[in-house]
Amino acid sequence: MYQTSYEAALQDLIDHLVRLPAVGPKGAQRIAYYLLEAEREDVEGLAASLLAVKDKLTVCEVCFNTAQGDRCRICRDDSRDPHVLCVVEEPKDVIAIERTREYTGRYHVLGGVLDPMRGIGPEQLHIKDLYSRLADGSVQEIILATDPNTEGEATAAYLGRQLATIGVSVTRLASGLPMGGDLELADEVTLGRAFVGRRRIDE
Amino acid sequence: MYQTSYEAALQDLIDHLVRLPAVGPKGAQRIAYYLLEAEREDVEGLAASLLAVKDKLTVCEVCFNTAQGDRCRICRDDSRDPHVLCVVEEPKDVIAIERTREYTGRYHVLGGVLDPMRGIGPEQLHIKDLYSRLADGSVQEIILATDPNTEGEATAAYLGRQLATIGVSVTRLASGLPMGGDLELADEVTLGRAFVGRRRIDE
Repeated sequence: MYQTSYEAALQDLIDHLVRLPAVGPKGAQRIAYYLLEAEREDVEGLAASLLAVKDKLTVCEVCFNTAQGDRCRICRDDSRDPHVLCVVEEPKDVIAIERTREYTGRYHVLGGVLDPMRGIGPEQLHIKDLYSRLADGSVQEIILATDPNTEGEATAAYLGRQLATIGVSVTRLASGLPMGGDLELADEVTLGRAFVGRRRIDE
Repeated sequence: MYQTSYEAALQDLIDHLVRLPAVGPKGAQRIAYYLLEAEREDVEGLAASLLAVKDKLTVCEVCFNTAQGDRCRICRDDSRDPHVLCVVEEPKDVIAIERTREYTGRYHVLGGVLDPMRGIGPEQLHIKDLYSRLADGSVQEIILATDPNTEGEATAAYLGRQLATIGVSVTRLASGLPMGGDLELADEVTLGRAFVGRRRIDE
């Protein structure tokens, strides 16, 4: 750290802020000066909300999504279809899928992806818990919604093989051109997937 | 606000974070999930540093810079030249100038710029306090370092006229092409200033 002219308390706040993701040194300075000028009440509210996240949030005992209490909002919601299970890597993925408003089933959060190089095998993920949820036979379809990258694809392939023996319908999210994108700007893997997955326009 | 699937405590934190400058909705979500996974100790440290800024920081009674205690770091530093005063708009400007390591004098923070449209006249800024600091005759040069925009220029022009009657040397920071920039990309005002302020290369 080079010598700066910030007062100690300001420097300390900036040091904490730069550690956050998506906040650079300039952003940290802007935020720090903003808070310096902000109403005391607002700063206290922010500080309280930070601590509340640590105090109140846990992991859902059913699906491993983020939860406030024993079960997450989705597992507590009786209107959600218990026959469809969407398997995702992280709680953030649940939020992203919920935003589409296309899905009314339930989730299962793996807590990561298979990554042998980093020592992450099936035992390090919530895969056994997934099989337990299938035991009573009520789940009819499992949608594998891991990320469309090397690890995500490998994890989906692994789960696909395992689940094939159970006799449940297993699907994978479609790969293809992103909406609003330019065909000429798509990478070759995405464009290749779009060809392989092409559909009749009368479908 | 549209309905989301965040648990209440997470939603509350994200709501607080999006109000910060330089943090968008995506950034707020990234920060919130990062904090959810972070060590409790680190989150407590961040919360404490937020409150410390409100508890410990004040305004320097001499120059109106941000201070921890009665006087800021620069006013407390006896090695700083008391004969030169650099007049800036905000405490942030002090930090920016200190980073250059080109300046060893003292500062005077106006707390803004003249802006008649928003009802900000000389009385709303720390201008009287500036004159008080000049009373004992120890200041020999005043550098006007307000921003090179309409309000900053107008404020510098106003102060220049006022200070001319006191018999102190008044200078303004040079305007011209930014270092590392492209001449062809400079706006016409900046390029015009660079011509007006041109210097002999043997100077």
